[in-house]
Amino acid sequence: MTPATYSPISVDCVVFGFDGNLLKVLLVPRRFKEAGSDGRLVERQDCKLPGSLIFDDEDLTQSAYRILGEIIDTNNIYLKQLHVFSNPDRIDSRSMEWLNETYRVEARRIVTVAYYSLVKLTPKMAALCEANHGEWHDVQSIRKLALDHKSILMRALETLNKQLVNEPIAFELLPRRFTIRQLQMLYEAILGVEVDNRNFRKKLLSSGYLEALDEKEHGVAHKPARFYQFNKSRFEREARRKTKLNFINWQG
Amino acid sequence: MTPATYSPISVDCVVFGFDGNLLKVLLVPRRFKEAGSDGRLVERQDCKLPGSLIFDDEDLTQSAYRILGEIIDTNNIYLKQLHVFSNPDRIDSRSMEWLNETYRVEARRIVTVAYYSLVKLTPKMAALCEANHGEWHDVQSIRKLALDHKSILMRALETLNKQLVNEPIAFELLPRRFTIRQLQMLYEAILGVEVDNRNFRKKLLSSGYLEALDEKEHGVAHKPARFYQFNKSRFEREARRKTKLNFINWQG
Repeated sequence: MTPATYSPISVDCVVFGFDGNLLKVLLVPRRFKEAGSDGRLVERQDCKLPGSLIFDDEDLTQSAYRILGEIIDTNNIYLKQLHVFSNPDRIDSRSMEWLNETYRVEARRIVTVAYYSLVKLTPKMAALCEANHGEWHDVQSIRKLALDHKSILMRALETLNKQLVNEPIAFELLPRRFTIRQLQMLYEAILGVEVDNRNFRKKLLSSGYLEALDEKEHGVAHKPARFYQFNKSRFEREARRKTKLNFINWQG
Repeated sequence: MTPATYSPISVDCVVFGFDGNLLKVLLVPRRFKEAGSDGRLVERQDCKLPGSLIFDDEDLTQSAYRILGEIIDTNNIYLKQLHVFSNPDRIDSRSMEWLNETYRVEARRIVTVAYYSLVKLTPKMAALCEANHGEWHDVQSIRKLALDHKSILMRALETLNKQLVNEPIAFELLPRRFTIRQLQMLYEAILGVEVDNRNFRKKLLSSGYLEALDEKEHGVAHKPARFYQFNKSRFEREARRKTKLNFINWQG
């Protein structure tokens, strides 16, 4: 029998936030040594997704909460398993050395389970994150990441795109009360398209899941816009009812 | 630093098939020894999902194809990652012993990645499967499975239910040409509800993705019904087009 692989398992987290204008992803710095032009080892730095090997007494979700809990406030965040990345050659030998040193293991490969999270990027969250050396990077501007984290990010982005169209997850990224304009900016930032303002407003308001509040923006240069909130429990109630009735509800 | 877990990783496959009447799942026998009433070891047998530890040179999907390739014909099957089950205590100590003996490892825990597959249960597939000691069990009649495989099966069933409503996956389980009645029986078997015949037919035919063939059933007691086929490429083309236009397509 071919020998079974003993492999450390890691968890890597793709955390998306929205700053009102751009889609951001949470990264942490990685310090490593590399041979410089004169052959001597030079200290370098790049960025990676927050991650860790899992520990003996943890399941994967506990591990994801531990990793994120060291950087952000994990109360009420949206967190799901995304995908397992298991190509035996997913990490090149130099990064494999870095991982083995960092975690004091002797692994030839590491299987990683990617988690996917959406958070409300409040000023409090941003401050906490900065204090813990987390960095919010504009997703569009990211050229390279350490290890194979760029491809994990791309996979998460694909999922975010699909989900945004098919599920009301936009509200996980917005403040509890928001204007229709903020919601539209979020859709445009993620989907990378311009959305027709009138259609968007009409479709959203006719969905029946947005509640107009008595409050309006203040201190803005333009005409103050009304705040709305998403009625999640009503949405979920309706979704359960409709699934029972609509046995065919294909996206096509 | 808490020590990182070195753990073998396994792949377990939930394969669904439809025999024209009932929803079936592919199981394999597991032989193990247990102390009988007189204290002597007795050979026993139960059932489990097809599975294996992953090998050194495999990624998870290759492993899933290897596992299934030993039992069924894996050409053109629908196969996806379902979920990772990673609770450190997911397997009781007696089954852990069985796993360690079977795979000649010394693990304290095993993290398993469940795969989810839909196949066309043709007579050829059924015969091949039987020759390879695979068994198709009626999903509704399964009370217990080895290890934690019953909970993996329940999770896959949940996914199948949701998918059946939201995506045209029914056709993965049906022969290439099928009658509307066969399709309806499939929906009823999986969702566990009676579906109104007239509504069902109307909704399906108006979708534009079913093509009526010139062939009809023969050798049946009732009036021969027309055969249909699913136009997958047309569905996918339309789905891409509509996703671009419908930036809000929530299920609720």
